[in-house]
Amino acid sequence: MPNALPSPIKKLINEFTKLPGIGEKTAARLAFYLLKQSKEELGIFSKTLAELKEKIVRCSICQNIAETDPCPICKDSNRDKSVICVVGEPLDMVALEGTSEYKGVYHVLGGSISPVEGIGPDQLKIKELQNRVEKGKDKIKEIILANNPTLEGEATAMYIAKLLKPLNIKITRIARGLPVGGDLEYADEVTLSNALKGRKEY
Amino acid sequence: MPNALPSPIKKLINEFTKLPGIGEKTAARLAFYLLKQSKEELGIFSKTLAELKEKIVRCSICQNIAETDPCPICKDSNRDKSVICVVGEPLDMVALEGTSEYKGVYHVLGGSISPVEGIGPDQLKIKELQNRVEKGKDKIKEIILANNPTLEGEATAMYIAKLLKPLNIKITRIARGLPVGGDLEYADEVTLSNALKGRKEY
Repeated sequence: MPNALPSPIKKLINEFTKLPGIGEKTAARLAFYLLKQSKEELGIFSKTLAELKEKIVRCSICQNIAETDPCPICKDSNRDKSVICVVGEPLDMVALEGTSEYKGVYHVLGGSISPVEGIGPDQLKIKELQNRVEKGKDKIKEIILANNPTLEGEATAMYIAKLLKPLNIKITRIARGLPVGGDLEYADEVTLSNALKGRKEY
Repeated sequence: MPNALPSPIKKLINEFTKLPGIGEKTAARLAFYLLKQSKEELGIFSKTLAELKEKIVRCSICQNIAETDPCPICKDSNRDKSVICVVGEPLDMVALEGTSEYKGVYHVLGGSISPVEGIGPDQLKIKELQNRVEKGKDKIKEIILANNPTLEGEATAMYIAKLLKPLNIKITRIARGLPVGGDLEYADEVTLSNALKGRKEY
């Protein structure tokens, strides 16, 4: 940004550009938008940012972020503790919760195995999953691997499947196929091939 | 966002969605990105936000936001005070400064006349421009109307041109035509017609 801008704005633009997917132009638009807001509004935003990490802990059971340990889902007596759904990130869990279909519990790995980014199994909560499953072996009926359908997600799912195999618990992988509203014409080959392989009888 | 998320994150997502062009998914992505940052980083961001308005004043000459009054440009003895470039927003001025071609001073209106949004001449710094030009009449040689080439910008430029006409100062409007890198094939009719009308001899 040229020197023509006052430094408090330049600083805020700089902070915004650190965020993923936000370039200099978007950052400037956001900063100028905020400049038009009241001091109270800015104060609330500022306080929310400062307090973000203060009230958040990690659930010692599912490794998800939460305000309490155990988290509300792990504490909920209505959830089926015999099914564990393994996801990469907290938002993946949020997406699954959005379906209101799943009544089991979760395990949040904190990402996917990605040698390119230097993320190995040790950087994820895989050891914690292993311990959790070993301890609850008698009560756990199924482990659903809901890792992302990406290269990294598939690799992570495969790694976990191998790791947990000796425990003799049913391990499943979420279905891969054509998304609702998708178009065969525009689907990539791997998705189409998955859709064919996973076909079901009417 | 579903209730599955801890409230500090939900609050931050909520703050982000208030910003222009940021939907719930982007807001969630930003909030989770920030959750991974250190407390220090968050503290700096938070402080920058809180202090945004504290150190910013309005330049009493050009009406632009600045850290000092008059602003660095109005104070600069190397700038040509006899040419005033009228722009809508501070970022328009920043864009013009980016060309390093303009050596005059500015007047920032704070927007464009837009009856739809309830913005009339009184909500803009037009009165201030009029006073400024009237006071400096003998020294001012040209007023460049660099309002946006939108309906609202054109209306604002026309309004100002009419208002200042009695003062008998040269009033110009920035050229409208095809942008560099543009393609005739995809240009709209008005732009093309402007490009034709504004043609120049080699």
